[in-house]
Amino acid sequence: MSRPLILLSNDDGIQAAGLKALAEAMREVGEVVVIAPEVERSAMGHAITISDPLRVKEVDLGLDGVSAYACSGTPADCVKLGLLSMLSRKPDLVVSGINHGGNTGVSVIYSGTVSAAAEGTILGVPGLAVSVDAREVSSFEPTQAVAYHVARGVLDHGLPSGTLLNINVPALPVEQLPAGTMNGQGYVLTVHGKSDWQDHFDRRVDPNNRVYYWLSARKRVVSEVPETDEETLKAGRVSITPLHYNLTDYKARKTIASWDLFSKPK
Amino acid sequence: MSRPLILLSNDDGIQAAGLKALAEAMREVGEVVVIAPEVERSAMGHAITISDPLRVKEVDLGLDGVSAYACSGTPADCVKLGLLSMLSRKPDLVVSGINHGGNTGVSVIYSGTVSAAAEGTILGVPGLAVSVDAREVSSFEPTQAVAYHVARGVLDHGLPSGTLLNINVPALPVEQLPAGTMNGQGYVLTVHGKSDWQDHFDRRVDPNNRVYYWLSARKRVVSEVPETDEETLKAGRVSITPLHYNLTDYKARKTIASWDLFSKPK
Repeated sequence: MSRPLILLSNDDGIQAAGLKALAEAMREVGEVVVIAPEVERSAMGHAITISDPLRVKEVDLGLDGVSAYACSGTPADCVKLGLLSMLSRKPDLVVSGINHGGNTGVSVIYSGTVSAAAEGTILGVPGLAVSVDAREVSSFEPTQAVAYHVARGVLDHGLPSGTLLNINVPALPVEQLPAGTMNGQGYVLTVHGKSDWQDHFDRRVDPNNRVYYWLSARKRVVSEVPETDEETLKAGRVSITPLHYNLTDYKARKTIASWDLFSKPK
Repeated sequence: MSRPLILLSNDDGIQAAGLKALAEAMREVGEVVVIAPEVERSAMGHAITISDPLRVKEVDLGLDGVSAYACSGTPADCVKLGLLSMLSRKPDLVVSGINHGGNTGVSVIYSGTVSAAAEGTILGVPGLAVSVDAREVSSFEPTQAVAYHVARGVLDHGLPSGTLLNINVPALPVEQLPAGTMNGQGYVLTVHGKSDWQDHFDRRVDPNNRVYYWLSARKRVVSEVPETDEETLKAGRVSITPLHYNLTDYKARKTIASWDLFSKPK
């Protein structure tokens, strides 16, 4: 029987240390092919390229047995291109990351990391998004261990169609993580929370006297329900959130149904 | 009492005919300010610009009483910049469109039109995304009427916090639309369906002998539940879907809870 085929991508770009760390971990699980943006594509949301062609270049990540390609497109483009054109067979998993920085709450909406995993899910392959909660990371080892165990779990159990897992790992040294973390135990099955960003724009004037605006943001933890992604992460535990892309707001639908605008139910 | 303030954006760009048509309709509801991408930004998903500054230029849409600005950013950037920096007060509505082409099923995930409305909702202002189901439209009149009536409805009733409305109007002449459409009646309160795209990539070689890939897609209608966005639209009726951005897949969460990976509930 052939080994599982795993497609990797990210949004920090093909040269990111987190991507290489993920490839190292996934190499223990199956055959790994990497297709990632040639440059950083953070905060791309679920953008895809429809008006321009995509170009691809093979690169050497210095990992035996791992083939890797830099792509001119977005994270979602990379996964779409891999699944629909470049890979010789349908992969068993799409794994995105390791993102340098957590993807929780409202950030999930803007995240290129999550969108790459979501593209896998949309095209019928279980998707995992993996992030570590710091821009600068001294060791990817705990996140690698988590990614390994969750990937194994998904290959063993399968995921429901349309579901992806959004995995966030605290940026703590191994010895400060809860017992079991490195062995694939004690993770928290969380819900997508409402933590957001306190955004503002700096209005500035350039040397040629033209106005420009620069986005600046600070994370705000919002606690509305127990077991959110952000709170679990901040408590030093691994957060795993099952996400889907049925965006219907059923509760609002009931509220709104009484408006004059709508046909009355038969 | 001051008139409602309405922020408009889109993803087809500041020069799009659909945007102007929307501004005409919204002018009947309140004071209108337009901030839209200076170029087309379709399929941008919920991308935002974090590594570059944004620039803004006032433009004349030729509509009395409507001020308009072209912005160098994405649809979500335009709305964020308007709400957080450019507008003198918090608007009462954010309306995005009129998109040239329907936004139903999986397209919703990729849609810059929907993301502009979603950005309003994320920042606490009710968002409406408005699309007409054709790339070429002979008359925006029915879509203008629908946008007018729904905007009035939202101002009268309010929307639950975190909800946006995704409005899709069939591209039919007035006389082929169901009775009541032009008067704000008989719309269908739909759910976000699973219609998707049969994607493939054309692999081509350029005159310099370099390979490139071009995305090509054809819509596929998927019918799994009654009253989906796409099926309602295809039946010639106006579809209004309440959407939210809590992406938790609660059903999958129950299924997955038995895996070894997770802490057992206390």
